[in-house]
Amino acid sequence: MNAILRVHCPDRTGIIAALSDFVFRHGGNILDLDQHSDPDGNRFFMRLVWSMERFTLDADGVRLGLEVYARSFGLAWELSFDDRRDRVAVFCSKEPHCLYDLLLRQRLGELAGDVVLVVSNHEDARPAAAYFGVPFVVTPVTRDNKAKAEAEQLELLAGHGIGLVVLARYMQILSPEFVERWSGRVINIHHSFLPAFAGARPYHQAKARGVKLIGATAHYATEDLDEGPIIEQDVVRVTHRDEVEDLIRKGRDLERQVLARAVRLHLQRRVLVDGRRTIVFG
Amino acid sequence: MNAILRVHCPDRTGIIAALSDFVFRHGGNILDLDQHSDPDGNRFFMRLVWSMERFTLDADGVRLGLEVYARSFGLAWELSFDDRRDRVAVFCSKEPHCLYDLLLRQRLGELAGDVVLVVSNHEDARPAAAYFGVPFVVTPVTRDNKAKAEAEQLELLAGHGIGLVVLARYMQILSPEFVERWSGRVINIHHSFLPAFAGARPYHQAKARGVKLIGATAHYATEDLDEGPIIEQDVVRVTHRDEVEDLIRKGRDLERQVLARAVRLHLQRRVLVDGRRTIVFG
Amino acid sequence: MNAILRVHCPDRTGIIAALSDFVFRHGGNILDLDQHSDPDGNRFFMRLVWSMERFTLDADGVRLGLEVYARSFGLAWELSFDDRRDRVAVFCSKEPHCLYDLLLRQRLGELAGDVVLVVSNHEDARPAAAYFGVPFVVTPVTRDNKAKAEAEQLELLAGHGIGLVVLARYMQILSPEFVERWSGRVINIHHSFLPAFAGARPYHQAKARGVKLIGATAHYATEDLDEGPIIEQDVVRVTHRDEVEDLIRKGRDLERQVLARAVRLHLQRRVLVDGRRTIVFG
Amino acid sequence: MNAILRVHCPDRTGIIAALSDFVFRHGGNILDLDQHSDPDGNRFFMRLVWSMERFTLDADGVRLGLEVYARSFGLAWELSFDDRRDRVAVFCSKEPHCLYDLLLRQRLGELAGDVVLVVSNHEDARPAAAYFGVPFVVTPVTRDNKAKAEAEQLELLAGHGIGLVVLARYMQILSPEFVERWSGRVINIHHSFLPAFAGARPYHQAKARGVKLIGATAHYATEDLDEGPIIEQDVVRVTHRDEVEDLIRKGRDLERQVLARAVRLHLQRRVLVDGRRTIVFG
Repeated sequence: MNAILRVHCPDRTGIIAALSDFVFRHGGNILDLDQHSDPDGNRFFMRLVWSMERFTLDADGVRLGLEVYARSFGLAWELSFDDRRDRVAVFCSKEPHCLYDLLLRQRLGELAGDVVLVVSNHEDARPAAAYFGVPFVVTPVTRDNKAKAEAEQLELLAGHGIGLVVLARYMQILSPEFVERWSGRVINIHHSFLPAFAGARPYHQAKARGVKLIGATAHYATEDLDEGPIIEQDVVRVTHRDEVEDLIRKGRDLERQVLARAVRLHLQRRVLVDGRRTIVFG
Repeated sequence: MNAILRVHCPDRTGIIAALSDFVFRHGGNILDLDQHSDPDGNRFFMRLVWSMERFTLDADGVRLGLEVYARSFGLAWELSFDDRRDRVAVFCSKEPHCLYDLLLRQRLGELAGDVVLVVSNHEDARPAAAYFGVPFVVTPVTRDNKAKAEAEQLELLAGHGIGLVVLARYMQILSPEFVERWSGRVINIHHSFLPAFAGARPYHQAKARGVKLIGATAHYATEDLDEGPIIEQDVVRVTHRDEVEDLIRKGRDLERQVLARAVRLHLQRRVLVDGRRTIVFG
Repeated sequence: MNAILRVHCPDRTGIIAALSDFVFRHGGNILDLDQHSDPDGNRFFMRLVWSMERFTLDADGVRLGLEVYARSFGLAWELSFDDRRDRVAVFCSKEPHCLYDLLLRQRLGELAGDVVLVVSNHEDARPAAAYFGVPFVVTPVTRDNKAKAEAEQLELLAGHGIGLVVLARYMQILSPEFVERWSGRVINIHHSFLPAFAGARPYHQAKARGVKLIGATAHYATEDLDEGPIIEQDVVRVTHRDEVEDLIRKGRDLERQVLARAVRLHLQRRVLVDGRRTIVFG
Repeated sequence: MNAILRVHCPDRTGIIAALSDFVFRHGGNILDLDQHSDPDGNRFFMRLVWSMERFTLDADGVRLGLEVYARSFGLAWELSFDDRRDRVAVFCSKEPHCLYDLLLRQRLGELAGDVVLVVSNHEDARPAAAYFGVPFVVTPVTRDNKAKAEAEQLELLAGHGIGLVVLARYMQILSPEFVERWSGRVINIHHSFLPAFAGARPYHQAKARGVKLIGATAHYATEDLDEGPIIEQDVVRVTHRDEVEDLIRKGRDLERQVLARAVRLHLQRRVLVDGRRTIVFG
C-alpha cells in the first residue's frame, strides 16, 4: 500500500526537505515526488507518494505529523492511500459512448477507482449498466422537479459512498448548490476545445466557423458552465468534407479519450486545483 | 506547364463530365481533380489540374471555352498556370520568426511563389531581408498617418506586381478598405486556436484560462478581425509548468508552420473561399 | 442508393472524361471523385461515387458499360452499391478491447458494414458478443488441428456470407492459403508503428529501445507477417515513466482507433491496394 | 544563479530526503525536483535545481558536500550552474535547414547554450554562419584523410571550449574513437522514426513501404549508428499523394523541431542516459 499526499501552501524554502525527511525518518520509501511553484501566485504545490510497507506510523500517525507541518508552513494537505479506491458515479443521458467507454476501461483495470453507480434521466443506458454489472438508477428530470431530482441524486451519492461524479454527456445542468457541494469532485466532458464553442451544439458551431480541428475538454464542473478548471483537452483534424455528423462521430472518439484520461488522473490524485486552473502531475 | 482551374457554382449534374471532357478533347491530361459539394449551400467546388504539354488551346482559348460553360452552368472560375508564380509581399513588425521562416522556405524551394518584397513598420528586419536578397521597405505607421502609410503600401504592392500579402506577425490592423480591395489575397497568422482567444495577447489569455493545448490559426484577413475564413490551424500541448514566455516560444514554432502551410496551399491554388469558410483541396 | 466504382489501370489520358461522361449520360450525379496517378509505376487509380436515383441503367447495365471501357483502357474495376453493406467477421482471442470497440461502433452506426460473426480460439469474448447480439463461434486452434480449424473457419465465413475478416488482436497466424484466398479482405492490427517492432511483444521491444512514441498499424494480412499493405497508423507519446503495462494500456487506445478507422475506410471502399502499399481516398 | 544537480545511483530510501535536506540546510531554495526509479534496473535518477542566491556554500563547497553522499549512497553526480552555458558546435554538410534553425533559435534566445562554431565538410553554409556571426570552419573529409580531419575537428572543439556537438544533417560518420571520447555530448538527428528505417535514404524507404506517418529522431551518437539513446522523436502524417520530395519537405520541418527540442533539453541538463535509453525530465 502507498500513501499519496497532496499539499499546497504559500511558497517558502524547506518544504520539500521537511516532508521528504518526515517520510524518511518514519521508514517510508519515496516512490514519486512532483512539485510546482507558481511564480505569479507565489504558491507551492506538491504530490508525494511513498510506500507504507515498512512505515512506522499508521494513517492517524501520518495525519498527526502532517498537522504539525500544516501549522508551521501554512500547509493545506490531502492524504489518501491507494488501497482505498474512489467509488465513482457516472451520470449520463441518451448518448452511451462515454459511459460504455468508462465501464470497459474499468473492466480492463485502467481506472484507479470503481464505477459503482450509473445515474441517468433516461432508461436508455440500463442494458449497458446491467451488462457490466453496475447498479442503474433513473432520476427523471423535468423543469418542475429539478430540485427533487437532485435531492434524490445527492442521496444516492451518499448512500453509495461516492467520491467522484463523472458527467458522461449528461444533458442536464446541475444546480449551483449541487456543484458547490461537490466542488472539485464532478468532472464534465464538453465537446469542444474550450474556451472555443462553449455552450450548446459546439459541433454545429465548429462547422459554421470552418475550423480545421475540433476538440474536447474535460473540466471540473463549476457554477459558471464551461468555465471550470480544465483537466485535459485534445483535438482531431477535420476538413471541409466533414459534415456535422462526421464531426459528431470524430468527436465521440475524442470525448471518450479525454474524459477517460481526466478521470484516471483525478482518481490517481494527480490533479490539484489552482483557482481557475489545474496542476496536473502527469 | 500545367493549368490550374478552380470553379464554383450551384450544384448540378454534368459539371465534372463537361469540364473533364473539355480538357480531354483538346489534348489535355488531367493530373489532379478534386471536388466538393456543399449539401447545405447546394454549392459545387472543383479544382482541376491538367498538363498543357499537348493542349491544343492557348490560355485565351481556354478562357473562351470556360466562358461558354460559365454561361451554361453559372460557373465562376479562376484559371492560372503554374509557370506564373505569385509574387508575394511579407508584412512584418519586430518579431522576425515568421518572416525568416518564409524566406528560408523560399530558398529551399518549398513555396510555390516568390517573396519579392518585405514591408515593415520598423527597421528590425532589414538585415534578414538583405541576407535573403529581398527588397525591404519601411512604412512607419502612426495613429495620424495610417491612411498615408496604406496608400504607400498599396502603391508598393502594385509596383512590385504583388499577388499575395502575408501578414507575418504584422502588428498593425489594416483598414477595411485595404482588406476589401485585397480580399482573399491577404493571409494573417493569429497566435491562438481561433475562435478561442481572439484579440490581443492570446498567450496571456491561454495561461490565465489554464488550457492544455495552445494553437495558431492562419486565415484570410477580413474587416472583422480574427473572423476571416480559416485556412489552417494546429496546436501543441502545454502544461502548468509553461509560463507565458514558454507559451510564446512554443507558439512561435506553431505560427511558423501553420502560416507556411497556409501560404503554400494558397500559392498552389488549393484554397477556395466559401463564405466564412474555406475549401482546402490538400 | 449510390454506386461506388473503383478502377485502376495503366495511366493514360481520357479516363476521367470517359467515366464521368458515362455517368452523366445515363443520368447519374457524381457525388465524389478522387483519383491518383502514381508517377513511378505509371498507374492510374480512381474512386467514383454517383447517385443511382435517376440512373437509367441497372447494376447489370453498369457492369456491361464498364466492360467496354475495361477493354479499351485496360481498366480493372470493382463496383459496389452502398445499400449492400459488407458482412464482417471479427476474429479475436482473449484481449477484448478491439472487439468491444468494433461492436460499439457498429451499434452507434459508425461502420459502413455489419459485424455478423465473432470467431475466437477462446471462450472469453462470448458474453460480449451475446450482449451485442452477434453469433459467437469458438474454433480452438492447437498446433495439430490448425488446418482443420481453418477449414471450419472458412466454412463459417462462407456460411455467413462474410466479405471482410478483421483480426482484432487474434493471436493465431493464418496460413498462407487462408491469406491468399482472402487476399485484400483480411485486416490485421499490429501493436507497433510498423516497420518498427515487427514480430512478437512490440511493447516490450519499444520499452527496451526507449522510444518516445509508440504506435499501432492496421494492414491487410499477407503471407509475410507484418509486411502487408498499411491502411492506417497512428502514434502516442510515452516517457521513461511508462512501464510496459502503461505502454500496453496506452497502446490499447491506439489499436482500437487505428483498427476502427481502417475497417471503416475499407468498408466505404476507400482503399485500393497498389502492390505493397495502399491508396486511401480519405 | 541556479545550481543544477543530476544524480544516479542504486535505488534506496533516503536519497531525496538527504539531498533536499542538504540544500535546505545551506540556505538553498529548491526550484525544481524530478526523480525516477527504474524498477527493472533498480536504479534511481534525480534532477534537482536550487537557487544559489542565499546559498552558504560556493561551488567547491557543494562538490565537497556531494562527495560525502557519493561515498555513502554510491551516488554518481554531475553539477552545473546555469550561468555557465554550454558552448555548442554544429556540424553540417550541404543541407542547411537544421543549422539555420538552430542559429535562428539562438538569436531568439530559445536555446540554453551558445552556438559558437560551425564545422562543415563543405563551403555551402558559410554565408549563413557569417550572417549569424558564428565562426565557420571547413574540414573536408575524404576516404583517405578522415583520421586527419577528425583530429582537426577535435582540436577545434578543444580550442573553442565546446561542450556539445550537434550533428545537424552532417553526412559523415564519426569514428568510434570520436564518439567514445565525446560520449553523451554528441546529438544526431536521424530523418526517420527509429528504429524504423535506420540507415540510408529513410524517406525513400518510407515511400517504398507505404507508411502513413514519417518521423524524425534525435539521439546521442554511439558507435552503433542509429542505435544511440533516443532523446526526442516526432511524426507527421503523409499520404499516397506524397512523393519522396514531399516526404523530404515535410521531414525537414520535423527534423528541425525534433533536433531543436533535443538540444534544448540537453543544454538544460534535463537528459540522463540510462544504458540504451534516456530519462528526460521534461
